[in-house]
Amino acid sequence: MMMQTPLTMTQMIKRAEKLYPKKGVVSRTESGIHRLTYKEIGERTRKLADQLQKLGVKRGDKVGTLAWNHHRHLEAYFAIPCSGAVLHTINFRLAPQHITYIINHAEDQVLILDSDILPLIEKIQGHLTTVKAFIIMTDKEELPETSLSPVYHYEKFISEGSADYEFPDDIDENAPAGMCYTSATTGNPKGVVYSHRGIVLHSMALGMVDNVAMSEKDIGMPVVPMFHVNAWGVPFAGVWFGTTLVLPGPYFTPKILAELIQSERVTMTAGVPTIWLGLLKELEENTYDMSSLRMVLCGGSAAPKGMIKAFEEKHNIPFVHAYGMTETSPLVVVSNLKSYQEDLSAEEKLEVKAKQGTLAAGLEMKVIGKDGEVKWDGKEMGELLIRGPWIASEYYQDERTSDAFRDGWLYTGDVVTVDEEGFMKVVDRIKDLIKSGGEWISSVDLENALMAHEGIFEAAVVAIPHEQWQERPVACVVLKDDYKGKVSKEDIYEFLKPQFAKWWLPDEVLFMEEIPKTSVGKFLKMALRDQVSQMQKS
Amino acid sequence: MMMQTPLTMTQMIKRAEKLYPKKGVVSRTESGIHRLTYKEIGERTRKLADQLQKLGVKRGDKVGTLAWNHHRHLEAYFAIPCSGAVLHTINFRLAPQHITYIINHAEDQVLILDSDILPLIEKIQGHLTTVKAFIIMTDKEELPETSLSPVYHYEKFISEGSADYEFPDDIDENAPAGMCYTSATTGNPKGVVYSHRGIVLHSMALGMVDNVAMSEKDIGMPVVPMFHVNAWGVPFAGVWFGTTLVLPGPYFTPKILAELIQSERVTMTAGVPTIWLGLLKELEENTYDMSSLRMVLCGGSAAPKGMIKAFEEKHNIPFVHAYGMTETSPLVVVSNLKSYQEDLSAEEKLEVKAKQGTLAAGLEMKVIGKDGEVKWDGKEMGELLIRGPWIASEYYQDERTSDAFRDGWLYTGDVVTVDEEGFMKVVDRIKDLIKSGGEWISSVDLENALMAHEGIFEAAVVAIPHEQWQERPVACVVLKDDYKGKVSKEDIYEFLKPQFAKWWLPDEVLFMEEIPKTSVGKFLKMALRDQVSQMQKS
Repeated sequence: MMMQTPLTMTQMIKRAEKLYPKKGVVSRTESGIHRLTYKEIGERTRKLADQLQKLGVKRGDKVGTLAWNHHRHLEAYFAIPCSGAVLHTINFRLAPQHITYIINHAEDQVLILDSDILPLIEKIQGHLTTVKAFIIMTDKEELPETSLSPVYHYEKFISEGSADYEFPDDIDENAPAGMCYTSATTGNPKGVVYSHRGIVLHSMALGMVDNVAMSEKDIGMPVVPMFHVNAWGVPFAGVWFGTTLVLPGPYFTPKILAELIQSERVTMTAGVPTIWLGLLKELEENTYDMSSLRMVLCGGSAAPKGMIKAFEEKHNIPFVHAYGMTETSPLVVVSNLKSYQEDLSAEEKLEVKAKQGTLAAGLEMKVIGKDGEVKWDGKEMGELLIRGPWIASEYYQDERTSDAFRDGWLYTGDVVTVDEEGFMKVVDRIKDLIKSGGEWISSVDLENALMAHEGIFEAAVVAIPHEQWQERPVACVVLKDDYKGKVSKEDIYEFLKPQFAKWWLPDEVLFMEEIPKTSVGKFLKMALRDQVSQMQKS
Repeated sequence: MMMQTPLTMTQMIKRAEKLYPKKGVVSRTESGIHRLTYKEIGERTRKLADQLQKLGVKRGDKVGTLAWNHHRHLEAYFAIPCSGAVLHTINFRLAPQHITYIINHAEDQVLILDSDILPLIEKIQGHLTTVKAFIIMTDKEELPETSLSPVYHYEKFISEGSADYEFPDDIDENAPAGMCYTSATTGNPKGVVYSHRGIVLHSMALGMVDNVAMSEKDIGMPVVPMFHVNAWGVPFAGVWFGTTLVLPGPYFTPKILAELIQSERVTMTAGVPTIWLGLLKELEENTYDMSSLRMVLCGGSAAPKGMIKAFEEKHNIPFVHAYGMTETSPLVVVSNLKSYQEDLSAEEKLEVKAKQGTLAAGLEMKVIGKDGEVKWDGKEMGELLIRGPWIASEYYQDERTSDAFRDGWLYTGDVVTVDEEGFMKVVDRIKDLIKSGGEWISSVDLENALMAHEGIFEAAVVAIPHEQWQERPVACVVLKDDYKGKVSKEDIYEFLKPQFAKWWLPDEVLFMEEIPKTSVGKFLKMALRDQVSQMQKS
């Protein structure tokens, strides 16, 4: 029979050290650009692992990170799971009480954090029940003044470790390797635990041509934060394959991203639509050489068709839509055209690329509507269910597990259609659908239509309670700077009318300066609804 | 944690049916070209699975196939393992007593065979101890006269099956899915059992960019026989990914292959060097459009540098060297250049591409020389050891397991070097190394040098016993037709001299009409040694 060698992450960093010692990472931090080879990254990773053991971190212990995308965070990405502990990446943009909850709930033993996140942790320090040590990542030689204790300077800490540290070879493939909390619409965040097996299989999936086609030849820049579903797994796959990784660091701007793409000849980059809207704006204002890009990967929420069109047709940058969630590692579907779809017209192709895509090999999906599985006709709507070896089976020690995980399937809470070719399109969150007079209106469809208007920078549609119809849509619109005062409510209605049934049209169009967003760039619809109520009252 | 969904092959055929019903297979049989969609292949596969159950085939039962590469064999490739039985592909070119041994040793319950293989099976029928039924694959409406019994006509057999047959969803990922016997240098063939997990992971590996990069966009033609390590896994990965598969059928010639590549716009094809030597000859004699090819994958034995050069430089066809064996599913290393090696000169690139390549992500290797692990310097020789989830852990019920599988590693019996960049090069079989005066001479190195000579069609070097030096090399050379009588022994010595130490030069150069080969196109060195002894005596 076949060998029972486990699918564990230790092979990833070992392969990079051995086969790609000359390649490595371009890391932007507070003080500028650092270039480290995988030989160096490997040594530093082993030193960190060695020191964490000496600090008392044991198999299965959780080590939290609160950090931007940079080389030190990448070292933690491997040192922690490859020594048998659990890499717990924490979204430092959440509310302090949620961060406290997350650290205590996961029972983090050690926190590794960027120096600019110190003040945040100092504030909640008194509420942390399990943390025994803090390690601060900084370019500066000395630590800033801090009330945290015991506290270590990352560079000094690892300098005492051994580069000959050997990763254990007896880690079970189903052992936990990482964890990440996802924000809930109500209540505390929910934790997802990633296994070694799940991460290895997901990384293989990222390397497959029909998905993201990551390879040694890539220069990959994950813009999606490393605290957000492991930056979609790009750092894991990247190190394994010997990909050059460009890590854009703290407080980046569209300008910084454009400059990095240009100077480092980035071939693939990954992030949420808000990031790409920003980049698009930058490309319209200044000139850059973007010719190295073979793929801008976009997920997290739906990319407006206008944005895809602008990237592809105006800037000649291949733009690929995908879909996933914290619970799915995250790759589920990717919108790569099928070979025979290459014969479609540009407009038809755009139509396909605006959908989230087809299911990755290795996963199963089901779409359940009112009467069981929906037809693949691009029209029937239903909730998306997913199953597979890199899909979570539960929330970590959380009663809400039973809401989302039933009969062996993950109930995503996303309402979707699937067309004849198997392309899935997210219509809405079940919770964000607008129920008007017994019918469903998709806020996402209206938003996409609005964002295709040349004068609109971004737009969100929310449901507002209505006596007669139960709920009615209201559009919130941010105009581009040079369109401000030049586009009226009536213009927008004229623009929408030919595209929708009359009863789909928003009851109101509100112009705003900005749409409130979550820490990962998604529209914060709850806050928006409050804001709209205020505006309507005033 | 993550879902425990098993890595089983049922997902492959189901994905092709559901997501790629319009795509499919181009199959050449005795009567011409057949085109079947994956919708049709799926239905026929389910019918075959249904009928095999009705015939009494149970979980874990072995079903043997003796067939060429065509659509019916592909249906068996999925119907058998996806119903829980074991697909046992049999090399019908082996000696009849070995075929008998294989069928009895595996305990095949049913044999599915091509009609042209009937006479062979009729001859050994009396010796088969476990086979309960024979299914004959043919385009003809009626079966030929046969002594086999009970015997079924494949098309009539499946026509009675149900296209609604459901593949079981409770197959364990470690359950056996396939098996294949590899010929031993002495004694009976040795069996390797492939698990569902191994085949799924190996298929993912084939889809990864840095390996074979198989995808939906490919039109893939496995020339390597489907009885030989599952045609290197190409049919499994191809169906899973929705790749168009071109199956070249029985008794193909270089001309037929060239015509199929041209007419079907084949993008990738896989086979042994002998096949590509034949194709090269055909391309030199006739004109074809080969522009669709993105990869000629070559394995099984070392490709001579001259052949790689001819494909790449003369015909502009990307030629990729790889290495594997029956025991390894087979993918182990592939010779894709690293990104920074693209800057090498054409000659240097050729040097790299003539090596077998770098290790696929997912596997581990070790090269053990006289003093432990060898240095990666391209010079130190040692035996290649491999480990990983698609590497066999044993021979099926065979005492010889302990020779090759030790301490969790597969001892390949291949002597290799590894260069600074991690490119492995097969120097020789441990058994084929020529031991001359206490030093090693690589027969493969001499063969490659000889085959780079413009007048030489093929060449093999064997060890001949020698009183003083223990062993000495003798070269056996087949000249190209238009060089016959024009290249002398002395010409060949002059050609070799600048390339090798004096004591490496063959003691004798023998001109032959043909070099004896195994059924899979490898040089039959044992037979050759006998032939050389005869020639030297006479």
